[in-house]
Amino acid sequence: MVKNHTLKSIHRNSKTVYLDYASTTPVDERVLKVALPFLKQNFHNPSSLYKEGVVVKKRVDEARKTCADFLKAHSNEIFFTASGTEANNLIILGVFRKALSEGVKKPHIITTVIEHPSVLEVCAYIERSGGEVTYVPVMENGIVDPREIKKVLKPSTVLISVMYANNEIGTIQPIRDIAKLVRHHKKVCGRGAGEQVPSEAVPATTTGRGGKLANQSPYPYFHTDASQAVQYCEMNALLLGVDFLTMDSSKIYAPKGTGLAYVKRGIKIESLVFGGGQENGLRAGTENVFGIIALAEALKIVEKMREKEGKRQAVLRDYLFSKIPKDFPLATVNGDLENRLPNNVNVCFPNLDAEYAVFQLDAHGIACSSVTSCKNLSEDSSSYVVEAIGKPECAKSSLRFTLGRGTTKDEINYLLKTLKNL
Amino acid sequence: MVKNHTLKSIHRNSKTVYLDYASTTPVDERVLKVALPFLKQNFHNPSSLYKEGVVVKKRVDEARKTCADFLKAHSNEIFFTASGTEANNLIILGVFRKALSEGVKKPHIITTVIEHPSVLEVCAYIERSGGEVTYVPVMENGIVDPREIKKVLKPSTVLISVMYANNEIGTIQPIRDIAKLVRHHKKVCGRGAGEQVPSEAVPATTTGRGGKLANQSPYPYFHTDASQAVQYCEMNALLLGVDFLTMDSSKIYAPKGTGLAYVKRGIKIESLVFGGGQENGLRAGTENVFGIIALAEALKIVEKMREKEGKRQAVLRDYLFSKIPKDFPLATVNGDLENRLPNNVNVCFPNLDAEYAVFQLDAHGIACSSVTSCKNLSEDSSSYVVEAIGKPECAKSSLRFTLGRGTTKDEINYLLKTLKNL
Repeated sequence: MVKNHTLKSIHRNSKTVYLDYASTTPVDERVLKVALPFLKQNFHNPSSLYKEGVVVKKRVDEARKTCADFLKAHSNEIFFTASGTEANNLIILGVFRKALSEGVKKPHIITTVIEHPSVLEVCAYIERSGGEVTYVPVMENGIVDPREIKKVLKPSTVLISVMYANNEIGTIQPIRDIAKLVRHHKKVCGRGAGEQVPSEAVPATTTGRGGKLANQSPYPYFHTDASQAVQYCEMNALLLGVDFLTMDSSKIYAPKGTGLAYVKRGIKIESLVFGGGQENGLRAGTENVFGIIALAEALKIVEKMREKEGKRQAVLRDYLFSKIPKDFPLATVNGDLENRLPNNVNVCFPNLDAEYAVFQLDAHGIACSSVTSCKNLSEDSSSYVVEAIGKPECAKSSLRFTLGRGTTKDEINYLLKTLKNL
Repeated sequence: MVKNHTLKSIHRNSKTVYLDYASTTPVDERVLKVALPFLKQNFHNPSSLYKEGVVVKKRVDEARKTCADFLKAHSNEIFFTASGTEANNLIILGVFRKALSEGVKKPHIITTVIEHPSVLEVCAYIERSGGEVTYVPVMENGIVDPREIKKVLKPSTVLISVMYANNEIGTIQPIRDIAKLVRHHKKVCGRGAGEQVPSEAVPATTTGRGGKLANQSPYPYFHTDASQAVQYCEMNALLLGVDFLTMDSSKIYAPKGTGLAYVKRGIKIESLVFGGGQENGLRAGTENVFGIIALAEALKIVEKMREKEGKRQAVLRDYLFSKIPKDFPLATVNGDLENRLPNNVNVCFPNLDAEYAVFQLDAHGIACSSVTSCKNLSEDSSSYVVEAIGKPECAKSSLRFTLGRGTTKDEINYLLKTLKNL
């Protein structure tokens, strides 16, 4: 039962009930404590030769190892970027441009209609730049059917990019199943089984003997943007079976401004940013040491808290889901209830003006969102994700509440009460 | 006179004499104080609709205005990136790819042989990608002769990129003269004067009538990487006459991880990173609010300290220059003495193994550098900049000492004494 006293105090103190953790998270005190020295006493350039620089380089290496351990990967598979967005760009454009440079004609990329703009916009650019992209649909529950991917695989396919968990509706995609499918496809085609040989996807520079070495094609690769999944899902890159994976600092209680690209050993892709040879030559620019150390520390904390926090947030999420129908009998949940992030509540309230509702809730001290914040709202305030699950009437009438480490049952009760009064 | 007591205490306390400010700077306390709240209480996503997000967005806008004011530019000409390196990449690749997309055949770029790797490596990539690059030499004093640029301008030239001040030898380039030359070239060619019409550089998409609209070509543009110059040189973009300018947070006492690209109003270039529409659609990724606020604050401080600090450091630099010949009669200064950053001392000590000397000085508590830290030392430990000024014998025998706000005369004396004893 919600205590009136607590509710009043939440509002009276204008203490915001923050329910937009999928948009960004505050920085964890423990993360800050570990990283702050790298702005001050350990400010040195990790590329410098003197001992202070060597110390910083060592700490960056350790951070890289921490991130690698988190993914059960190797240090030389970890590349730091400035954001999840940059990591997605690096990976997708990197594969595309590498394929082009190898002579692959019209490289083909498969992705889904519900990806983050940092994947969709890259794909749109690739379509304008001599590539081909197939956007597979998702089912009504917001989950992609691996068979849809299988259907559109072709010899020229160089990359499949499917997000691990959706940022708007929190649906978790069957990454392992898709990885299995991709592996199977490679195996079958690798045997040179007649028409299935992906000759178009064989780097011209490495064949040199027509299609005879077709089974040497490394394509297609498989990438997952795990930005939203890091805190809650299986993150063993080998178990997942991915070739590339994206992480973002700003979603895991580390400072904005750092991302991570996991690139499986042995895979060569084109750089996005050229220069001083940092990140093993793949991504130039003086290392954001503070951000890198912070990201690694944040992952250590995620590792420790994952199970407990995931369960705790799932209980709060389900409590919220169970209460909403009582006051809003016509409300429907967007996205699968089972395969869903424990912190995601996305609900369609028929005929609601969601953008207006966000402002109203804001006036009552509740921070939430209608569509993804990573989209120019002046252009379009409707959700392409909600539309993609076959609910166009909900695209402008859905609210997203995303829970986090600071979320309490009192806050959920306050939200419920406020929603009812609106 | 140097007091022995001070010298001893510098060394005994292992207090490093940091003379590598051109590599990176510690973060200013005042910068940190202003920026830190944006990691904690103001952690919100500037793209979110609720008031906390709006507050953060407003602060990012104000920071953008501060940066614009610093350059006497407009807010919508300022684009934040993750580094000076990324800004250089964004601008150079952005112009190149835009020109390609407009149908310019084999876009031509002019730069100098002493640019930072983040320019040279981009140019090398462009050469591999259907572009053409001319690297103009510099004179023995490390300064580019604008006439060398004039000589190699051609109809297909889309960009001239010349650094404002060199990171290794501190020479300041005649940016205004080059800008004047570019303007003159545009004017003459703009009049459609026979062979001088840069028809190859006219976007095919905008002419539509053969070469008749040749005078509508916006090319060539002029870019300067001002990363090393920000603290000491004229930074009025209009006076400088540049179309693009690069800055880097890590050289001006702000945290590593933020860069700035000035893009003159009206110029359209291709994006480097695609996604959520941030930075007016030019550079995607959740804003590194902490880094942006810090960069702006650092520029405010630069503005205040520029004249006094420039003079103070120049006095220390000249003192060091005046003392070195006494102990090292064969030593020579690399680069011009007049047109030189007030904080740069780069000296060739004949037959010295500079890399070894850096280690020895390090053992005595002095941090300096031999070649730029933005270069993979495992590949090559000689300076291409020193080679480019016609002193190949000095390429592995030169030391760079770069002064900063913390540099004192005692430190310079300690350096002199240590150098002598080595």
